[in-house]
Amino acid sequence: MSRITLEQANAIIAAALAKGRELALKPLTIAVLDAGGHAIALQRQDGAANHRPQIAIGKASGALALGVSSRQIGEMAEARPIFVAALGPILPHGAIPAAGGIILVGTDGAPVGAVGVTGDTSDNDEACALAGAAAAGLKPQ
Amino acid sequence: MSRITLEQANAIIAAALAKGRELALKPLTIAVLDAGGHAIALQRQDGAANHRPQIAIGKASGALALGVSSRQIGEMAEARPIFVAALGPILPHGAIPAAGGIILVGTDGAPVGAVGVTGDTSDNDEACALAGAAAAGLKPQ
Amino acid sequence: MSRITLEQANAIIAAALAKGRELALKPLTIAVLDAGGHAIALQRQDGAANHRPQIAIGKASGALALGVSSRQIGEMAEARPIFVAALGPILPHGAIPAAGGIILVGTDGAPVGAVGVTGDTSDNDEACALAGAAAAGLKPQ
Amino acid sequence: MSRITLEQANAIIAAALAKGRELALKPLTIAVLDAGGHAIALQRQDGAANHRPQIAIGKASGALALGVSSRQIGEMAEARPIFVAALGPILPHGAIPAAGGIILVGTDGAPVGAVGVTGDTSDNDEACALAGAAAAGLKPQ
Repeated sequence: MSRITLEQANAIIAAALAKGRELALKPLTIAVLDAGGHAIALQRQDGAANHRPQIAIGKASGALALGVSSRQIGEMAEARPIFVAALGPILPHGAIPAAGGIILVGTDGAPVGAVGVTGDTSDNDEACALAGAAAAGLKPQ
Repeated sequence: MSRITLEQANAIIAAALAKGRELALKPLTIAVLDAGGHAIALQRQDGAANHRPQIAIGKASGALALGVSSRQIGEMAEARPIFVAALGPILPHGAIPAAGGIILVGTDGAPVGAVGVTGDTSDNDEACALAGAAAAGLKPQ
Repeated sequence: MSRITLEQANAIIAAALAKGRELALKPLTIAVLDAGGHAIALQRQDGAANHRPQIAIGKASGALALGVSSRQIGEMAEARPIFVAALGPILPHGAIPAAGGIILVGTDGAPVGAVGVTGDTSDNDEACALAGAAAAGLKPQ
Repeated sequence: MSRITLEQANAIIAAALAKGRELALKPLTIAVLDAGGHAIALQRQDGAANHRPQIAIGKASGALALGVSSRQIGEMAEARPIFVAALGPILPHGAIPAAGGIILVGTDGAPVGAVGVTGDTSDNDEACALAGAAAAGLKPQ
């Protein structure tokens, strides 16, 4: 498998939203991208603010851009804040330095896409991303 | 009602994709935006090329930006090509001059959002957009 | 195979440049992108102007963005000039409407990348792109 | 000599990649620019993430933009973080404040181009850039 299907992307989003309801989280926005960083599916829950899609996409796209999770980009930003700030203008969707964006890999360990979640705390966002991936039978990198 | 719900947006997309299957169209990409031009939901079918999301969003967003359908922007482009070309760089998602992007209105006639479809001929794209809107009980402007 | 390797990308460029020498073409610039539109390798021959890399990348990236060759984008531009002009601002590397950018496909017919060539006439540019692909055992879409 | 030739650029990249293999580094991406900051050659090794080309180019281009190595831009960022952050949006390829981007000079001491390396620690990236320059008989500024 070299690309997440739309059916898988919808399953990821459904499971991530279900996790959000289970945890009684704030309204979430969830994006699923292919390995090239191009959107396959996106959903923004009622009550989520205007540019949450850009943040969800920025978490997932930044992860794919650098090859690490957005949590790790957040850790990188703690250690090297100006380096991470300098990435914003040169990445098409920025690099959001906060948990919630994870790379998904195929059976050979190569990326097949990414999911980005935003709306609650970044730890909770990431829990929903992981729940979504698990439901679709996909592993985080 | 001043905003399309996520449930309605998903219904619009499901019905538009069903119309595409009924007409045996090429892989479609469908975006639903709120009245402010911000994405609520998006789906890109397997086999659709990388940047179809930008075109779907550009049809719907351009329609909301100018207050007319993307079909009418296409007609405007025939009459005043340089005017329409000049809009591209100043609109955040451009203005795609081709049918497939329609504004959706509430019972008071005010915009509540827009839908953009791309992937087949622009006439077929628009047919799917209209089918999606009808299924969600929403009227085109 | 879901991605062109660097070794293949270098082989494509070497063969395309050899074709250019055989045909005594002007200095060429050649880019090879992965299926997501991200550069794997690029070479600009001595004497080629400053922004030829952007044109080579724009041919290949535009082809992947829309799912057709840059020659077909050129034909689209003849029929619908304002539509193609409107794509420029919404695609990260534009869409160059001239032959020389071709999508490369794997054994299952799905894109594995693209090559873009610029520097001579667009017909000659495309001949070099095709020669490069053939040398690496890759088929155009 | 006022410009690096493509032959030299390819030699720089080959030697930098050889250094990376010798040191068993992670997958590298290497860009060589002319004195005007325009790409001559680029290679991204298998396994390197999507936007490594932008980071490699940003290291080399930022160095040429400011007239110092990207290591020195990193030191400048420690002392004047907001100044360096403000440069990002006004430089076409940003200014990456981390070692790995070096200016190359001719026999008269004037810049003839730059090389940028990314993928491992920035110290290792810079070691590969220097090895590449040395192999092509070019001196760092």
